[in-house]
Amino acid sequence: MVVVMQAGASEEQLLQVEDRLHHDGFKVHLSRGANRIIIGAIGNTEQVDRRALEALPGVEKIISITRPFKLASREFQPENTIIQIGDHCLGDGSLIMIAGPCAVEGREKYLQAAWAVKKAGADLLRGGAFKPRTSPYSFQGLGEEGLKIMAEARELTGLPIVTELMDQKSLDMVVEYADIVQIGARNMQNFLLLKDLGSINKPVLLKRGMSATIEEWLMAAEYILMSGNPQVILCERGIRTFETYTRNTLDLSAVPLVKELSHLPVLVDPSHGTGKRELVAPMAMAAAACGADGLIIEMHPHPEEAWSDGPQSLVPEQLSHLIKHCQGLRRSLQAGEVI
Amino acid sequence: MVVVMQAGASEEQLLQVEDRLHHDGFKVHLSRGANRIIIGAIGNTEQVDRRALEALPGVEKIISITRPFKLASREFQPENTIIQIGDHCLGDGSLIMIAGPCAVEGREKYLQAAWAVKKAGADLLRGGAFKPRTSPYSFQGLGEEGLKIMAEARELTGLPIVTELMDQKSLDMVVEYADIVQIGARNMQNFLLLKDLGSINKPVLLKRGMSATIEEWLMAAEYILMSGNPQVILCERGIRTFETYTRNTLDLSAVPLVKELSHLPVLVDPSHGTGKRELVAPMAMAAAACGADGLIIEMHPHPEEAWSDGPQSLVPEQLSHLIKHCQGLRRSLQAGEVI
Amino acid sequence: MVVVMQAGASEEQLLQVEDRLHHDGFKVHLSRGANRIIIGAIGNTEQVDRRALEALPGVEKIISITRPFKLASREFQPENTIIQIGDHCLGDGSLIMIAGPCAVEGREKYLQAAWAVKKAGADLLRGGAFKPRTSPYSFQGLGEEGLKIMAEARELTGLPIVTELMDQKSLDMVVEYADIVQIGARNMQNFLLLKDLGSINKPVLLKRGMSATIEEWLMAAEYILMSGNPQVILCERGIRTFETYTRNTLDLSAVPLVKELSHLPVLVDPSHGTGKRELVAPMAMAAAACGADGLIIEMHPHPEEAWSDGPQSLVPEQLSHLIKHCQGLRRSLQAGEVI
Amino acid sequence: MVVVMQAGASEEQLLQVEDRLHHDGFKVHLSRGANRIIIGAIGNTEQVDRRALEALPGVEKIISITRPFKLASREFQPENTIIQIGDHCLGDGSLIMIAGPCAVEGREKYLQAAWAVKKAGADLLRGGAFKPRTSPYSFQGLGEEGLKIMAEARELTGLPIVTELMDQKSLDMVVEYADIVQIGARNMQNFLLLKDLGSINKPVLLKRGMSATIEEWLMAAEYILMSGNPQVILCERGIRTFETYTRNTLDLSAVPLVKELSHLPVLVDPSHGTGKRELVAPMAMAAAACGADGLIIEMHPHPEEAWSDGPQSLVPEQLSHLIKHCQGLRRSLQAGEVI
Repeated sequence: MVVVMQAGASEEQLLQVEDRLHHDGFKVHLSRGANRIIIGAIGNTEQVDRRALEALPGVEKIISITRPFKLASREFQPENTIIQIGDHCLGDGSLIMIAGPCAVEGREKYLQAAWAVKKAGADLLRGGAFKPRTSPYSFQGLGEEGLKIMAEARELTGLPIVTELMDQKSLDMVVEYADIVQIGARNMQNFLLLKDLGSINKPVLLKRGMSATIEEWLMAAEYILMSGNPQVILCERGIRTFETYTRNTLDLSAVPLVKELSHLPVLVDPSHGTGKRELVAPMAMAAAACGADGLIIEMHPHPEEAWSDGPQSLVPEQLSHLIKHCQGLRRSLQAGEVI
Repeated sequence: MVVVMQAGASEEQLLQVEDRLHHDGFKVHLSRGANRIIIGAIGNTEQVDRRALEALPGVEKIISITRPFKLASREFQPENTIIQIGDHCLGDGSLIMIAGPCAVEGREKYLQAAWAVKKAGADLLRGGAFKPRTSPYSFQGLGEEGLKIMAEARELTGLPIVTELMDQKSLDMVVEYADIVQIGARNMQNFLLLKDLGSINKPVLLKRGMSATIEEWLMAAEYILMSGNPQVILCERGIRTFETYTRNTLDLSAVPLVKELSHLPVLVDPSHGTGKRELVAPMAMAAAACGADGLIIEMHPHPEEAWSDGPQSLVPEQLSHLIKHCQGLRRSLQAGEVI
Repeated sequence: MVVVMQAGASEEQLLQVEDRLHHDGFKVHLSRGANRIIIGAIGNTEQVDRRALEALPGVEKIISITRPFKLASREFQPENTIIQIGDHCLGDGSLIMIAGPCAVEGREKYLQAAWAVKKAGADLLRGGAFKPRTSPYSFQGLGEEGLKIMAEARELTGLPIVTELMDQKSLDMVVEYADIVQIGARNMQNFLLLKDLGSINKPVLLKRGMSATIEEWLMAAEYILMSGNPQVILCERGIRTFETYTRNTLDLSAVPLVKELSHLPVLVDPSHGTGKRELVAPMAMAAAACGADGLIIEMHPHPEEAWSDGPQSLVPEQLSHLIKHCQGLRRSLQAGEVI
Repeated sequence: MVVVMQAGASEEQLLQVEDRLHHDGFKVHLSRGANRIIIGAIGNTEQVDRRALEALPGVEKIISITRPFKLASREFQPENTIIQIGDHCLGDGSLIMIAGPCAVEGREKYLQAAWAVKKAGADLLRGGAFKPRTSPYSFQGLGEEGLKIMAEARELTGLPIVTELMDQKSLDMVVEYADIVQIGARNMQNFLLLKDLGSINKPVLLKRGMSATIEEWLMAAEYILMSGNPQVILCERGIRTFETYTRNTLDLSAVPLVKELSHLPVLVDPSHGTGKRELVAPMAMAAAACGADGLIIEMHPHPEEAWSDGPQSLVPEQLSHLIKHCQGLRRSLQAGEVI
């Protein structure tokens, strides 16, 4: 950690900062520049509140040197975290395909969709029983009934299921049904919920918040890891920018960047990431090409009848093509030892 | 609502869209342009999922004409919502000053701060017993003990208290102690929590999410209103942009804009909005000048000892000046009938 | 175009808008909704200033239906624009590789770099003689001397050269030397310069502005096309967002989106787009996978001695690998008929 | 400047960095932390390319300690730069009001507007003869004819004139007519144009780029200052964010921040900053309250006939009110010694 003193900071203020740093267990190195004094503080910065130091008189700013996440960092754990779901492994170099409709809209429709997902060659089945919606007037999900339908679909197709948990109240219920518990972008910094996820024995798929930095995202993962659950899967789903032609801006550079900073597996959701059906396949290919551990794709047998996210949903045939091509691309990359 | 058909849309696709609109209870007007057909759909758009229509074959996009919020809109309720807190009224043209430390850090320190807030002339007292923190290693608040200390401070100073609720589990507890229940930026789209707030009999201070559009913010208010609680106070606290010299970018234009679109009172938090002590007073003045119904200001008797947000906290003397000047400015504006 | 009248607009205001629209050559369709009247205006919207109409009394907003670009649109020209540079074609499905150092720093160093680029298998050579730099104290390029060195490098290696034009004054000079004239992100909306480019007989590589929407980018291309030069190449180079771990956020979804909206070829610059050497190869692969017509890659024989952009420059061996893998990926995609 | 070495950096890499720093004239301080070595480099950082150092093997990142601008900084010049325009002073604590139509649309209309500006009590007259427009099909300005009309308006009303310069070609012409030369947001980083402005003897009004950080903005000012022109006026005009209800997000915190960092005067343009007429007055008041040195306001006698920016233009009566109220607010603040 580096403490930069203001241009006109007094010796007394300097002493006060040094005292505080010593008190907090830091070793201190002073560099007196032409205009400013900077202090290198060596020690354990995790427990220290950087902004508290910044409030000391005479301090201009505090600069962190080490990353604030620890358990999530590759420095802490150099080898990849590999998460087993049924017969599939996330994080071992394979490309896991998760697909399904945005929401469970009814038993018959969902089972039809589940079979289409199975037939298209996907590895896991997605679907929402609890739906976070911007408008209180939009369809909010079937709740436990939706979870039961998903469980039946798993029974029939053999596909493990991924579904979103929205709050603490339904945690036990969702954990009981889900094979992977998804935390949506809006809940990425719902810290009390993250802590509760530490004690479940199911993997957590943590979507990136729509305006979360990569550091904040990894800190959110740190909450879950620190609370005792090592099975965290990250998922890039687009960030909010000024661009309006797409629903979000899919930040694919997050994939290789997170894989460098962290040992956790990273998925990509090109459906929410773009919001447009015709962009899903090219972005899925791009994600497969830059090292994603898997994809999560919205599919609906009849997108025009979907109660949510129709415009970004593929039809079964498109999903089938997408999976074939992405897996083909991944295989040819691995043959060439590119990734 | 306007449905724009794709350039090459077929008559059959057009018919399908018209059928769907009729089925959803809309009256339909067709305009055939040189390149495109557009359909004006007249009816109640609140219950309709715009993106579902967008998924129909041949549809290029759906354009909303009316705002998606209803109960929160000034069209629905032309006169200001006025919320009474003790002797003070939010929304009646006065400028309500809320101040206090970021977090309750201990009984003695908080009571000292509360007296300083009182002495500085503030109307309400703030403080956090539950703190949402980016890092799991940072101080997370004293919990119920903090609430009890706040209640004691209210007892002693007579100032009503504002404190943050982070989750459903502690809702009853927080509602019991608080005079105003604050929902932080990260929970602005925690929809199930918003619904639960519909049944409490305390006003809710709803902070704008850090990347929330004004429309999304008003839709979040709509969740609370629709669930039965008419006492919603909005609070602009800065949005996330590319600028790094400030912690957030305080969007003051949100104040007159929201007051035009909605009848709900709007506060401004220049402390979080800028993250820098030296910017708090000028931005507070600006907020008072553009019509805010109140301000929420971080103050700490010893910011350099604060466990959070020290750099943006004023000392008591600064708070006292700020309140005097902001109230003076507001009075001189009202004398001149500017606002 | 759709004109939305305010909720309380008078019949007189409505008439005034209709008159104005008729006067501007539009046919007018009226839809009277429950709360608002909307007017469908059919005619040529290109010549109409949307914001002028928005200023009419009683008008709430104007909504464009058709895209504002014409010459750049795929509706205007369905087939791809193909641009021939030496033996290479941009826009015909092949993947053109452009590489070289950020700046020409001296004859010997540049020629060494040029040979490395040639040997790595790139198709074109890049290099900057005029460098836009945030700081006036940074190296600003060698000017014409730099162009002469580039021309010599072309002579020796046979590689056509791409270099940036910064202003009107040096237009003739740059056009004389360059095979492709690059317009940097900061000049994307330098409209008078864009107009001047209409009369040159060299292709223009138009980088996306760092906060330009896709619509603004295509409108900038429209300036060049409208001024008489049909050879415009677009280049995505990252947009500005809140994320700080990367220099910019590379918006790869722009590639398939622009290819859908426009007939112009699209390149990707993963070097500026990420600012980090270790992200260049994965993002290059992703760009190749989602349909880019080419890549522009910074390479420096000794990045640690580069006067600019060292951290994002590959060494020759890395470039060689990248080209091999990207071309391999593209070939395998084409064999599978994915793109 | 602080150089942070990678976690696994070798002693040899460390030596190489130290050598390079010594060679560049720096004194070097080493701090060996638990995981990383950091190097404090003391010396003149202005001439050093930070990213070149970042490219050295073993270097993780470079952290700047001092601000990169010098001539623009308040450390360099503690007292305010005061710029005299006719009888008015920018930067001396007064509030200078600049008003007028977006574009000069014709002699009669402009003279009428100029008299309205005069009558409303403004200090300077604005108007565009060269208009940067997103669309090549929009009105681009009258060119020199427009400048002549503006000069005539000055002659008649006695108001000095502010007008935009778009390129080097018309520099002499614009400088001849203008009292203040405006550089628009899109040209803020047109570095060669900025350099040319160093040699003119007229003040330059430098608008903030729509995605420019405050640092980049001050660096752009540095270009002009370094080239010999000390008369630079900054102007905040809104930045680009995700919000769509406003045209831009007016960043008023930039006003006190820039006044702390720099000695240059700062104006605010609430017309472009919001894009909505009804927000102009409240934001003008807010700007006056937080210390702006002046305002630049769009006014049009008949906004519904304006060829550009009608929706954000005030009518003369509104301008008159705004000026009266803003000046009243400023006087009452100065009486109370608030700012």
